Amino acid sequence: MTLPRIGVTLGDPAGIGPEIVVKALSELQTLPSAQYVIYGESRIIHSAEQALGLRLGWNHEIEMRDLPPGVTYPKTRGPSEAGGRASFLWFEAAVDDARRGELQALVTAPISKESWSLAGLSWRGHTEYLERDHPEAIMSFWSRSLRVALLSHHLPLREALERVKKDVILAFLRSLRQSLDKMSSGITTFLVAGLNPHAGEKGILGHEEETEIRPAVEEAVKEGMDVAGPFPPDTVFLMSRGKPDRMVVALYHDQGLIAFKMEAFSTGVNMTLGTPFVRTSPDHGTAFEIAGMNCADPSSLQEALILAANIVTEK
Amino acid sequence: MTLPRIGVTLGDPAGIGPEIVVKALSELQTLPSAQYVIYGESRIIHSAEQALGLRLGWNHEIEMRDLPPGVTYPKTRGPSEAGGRASFLWFEAAVDDARRGELQALVTAPISKESWSLAGLSWRGHTEYLERDHPEAIMSFWSRSLRVALLSHHLPLREALERVKKDVILAFLRSLRQSLDKMSSGITTFLVAGLNPHAGEKGILGHEEETEIRPAVEEAVKEGMDVAGPFPPDTVFLMSRGKPDRMVVALYHDQGLIAFKMEAFSTGVNMTLGTPFVRTSPDHGTAFEIAGMNCADPSSLQEALILAANIVTEK
Repeated sequence: MTLPRIGVTLGDPAGIGPEIVVKALSELQTLPSAQYVIYGESRIIHSAEQALGLRLGWNHEIEMRDLPPGVTYPKTRGPSEAGGRASFLWFEAAVDDARRGELQALVTAPISKESWSLAGLSWRGHTEYLERDHPEAIMSFWSRSLRVALLSHHLPLREALERVKKDVILAFLRSLRQSLDKMSSGITTFLVAGLNPHAGEKGILGHEEETEIRPAVEEAVKEGMDVAGPFPPDTVFLMSRGKPDRMVVALYHDQGLIAFKMEAFSTGVNMTLGTPFVRTSPDHGTAFEIAGMNCADPSSLQEALILAANIVTEK
Repeated sequence: MTLPRIGVTLGDPAGIGPEIVVKALSELQTLPSAQYVIYGESRIIHSAEQALGLRLGWNHEIEMRDLPPGVTYPKTRGPSEAGGRASFLWFEAAVDDARRGELQALVTAPISKESWSLAGLSWRGHTEYLERDHPEAIMSFWSRSLRVALLSHHLPLREALERVKKDVILAFLRSLRQSLDKMSSGITTFLVAGLNPHAGEKGILGHEEETEIRPAVEEAVKEGMDVAGPFPPDTVFLMSRGKPDRMVVALYHDQGLIAFKMEAFSTGVNMTLGTPFVRTSPDHGTAFEIAGMNCADPSSLQEALILAANIVTEK
């Protein structure tokens, strides 16, 4: 069995990215066997190692893609053009390698939207960049106890409601299923949330369950998928909690994210599916305010590394 | 200090209502000092006492309003016309007494919508009945760690979005504040959720935050209220969790209920505010399937009793 190659980007150099990458990769024994390839600048890694009193084992399991962005980083912590340019360069290089099949998965430490904007980049983040070439990209959220996929994500709620259509839902279910079938996800069953209170209560509290959602679920079942719903939005997550073979399909951003953050704030993992390669990231931001203080918690990044490596390992 | 009088309705006699009422009131030492008045039928209480091997202390702290509905209950558990008529009779009597000021609060064990429908009643439940006379009734949810009030509740999501207007929100904040100010709620601060992902992100992901929600919050602040927001819907609940002086204002049913049920499923309490008397109820249903098996958990009803009694006790 060849080891999967997992790219790890440093994120914004002024955030906690370098610190949590070094912390997580210095404990290789807690991670699945894989070839971890860091996309960043080696002097940033070295100074993080020094500051933390940790040493990465530069052996066959950790490799450095040294990509100096040729910028001068500001002394103060916070968003900056230099941080935006650097973090984008590393991310773009890793995505290119992943597209060429040189990486099976990509784990991204947090970037700063403000830094990207200062660097003149038009994407608001990793997901939006990936969506340019992969408009079918799916945002999903994974914790040890709960897994959620979002039918739509960064849309105003009114626009998100317009996407709750039979065809859109059915295409989404197919894409999600195909994407998971390529991996060792362990997920067999989708539970689809309703849109309205109590899942519409037979039409009294809204009609989309009967006109759009249920027909999509029924069609997916006919195609052989294990899908059920629509279920009341305020209990569907409880039905899935603690069941590792289930994933909830949420119909809009906050329906899924309210539940997920209540369950697994700061330990959850964000996973982009529907793309040719898997991408995971920790469920927190750059945390500029605590960067450089050696108090950043690497556990969400560790979970992101574990999930990425396990899920792409051949069944 | 006179003891507050708290009405307790039995709910559907074929559900777990009688069992949890007897269980909860048999442990008076765990409840605040109050005069608890049971609205139901004494022979149902007596047979529950017998089945459970418990005895209610019929002293000055527990009083029975014996209201035989003159119906024949079916032998099998489940929704029935008789159950609907009985549970409605008891609820209506308690509401009448509360309206006359004879009760300071009302605690309602679960009724069955199906039973009420079989009995020819047009309300879907306690809340809808109360709303007939009190259209300004507010649904709120309370647990030890989280409190949530709903701007709107049983509306299709599309209609709920139409209620996210400055004037509606402002009137709601005023009514909620007035209602809590009459009680010992301990709540000083409202955190208002946004409507769109990331609370609209300055208009990129939706405009209601800037055109409706923020203006309402600012106006409320001008009026002297301690209100903040709009906050991202997927983190506002985390900002309030564990802070007993905070209450989240959710803009639609599932925004509030997804968070609340993740936090406090089956232990939370539903409280109707904005009415002349407080009403609390456990956050679960009749549970016909386990009724009569002596395995129903009274803790949510206990919390409802404790909350009702504490909140109406004079400051």
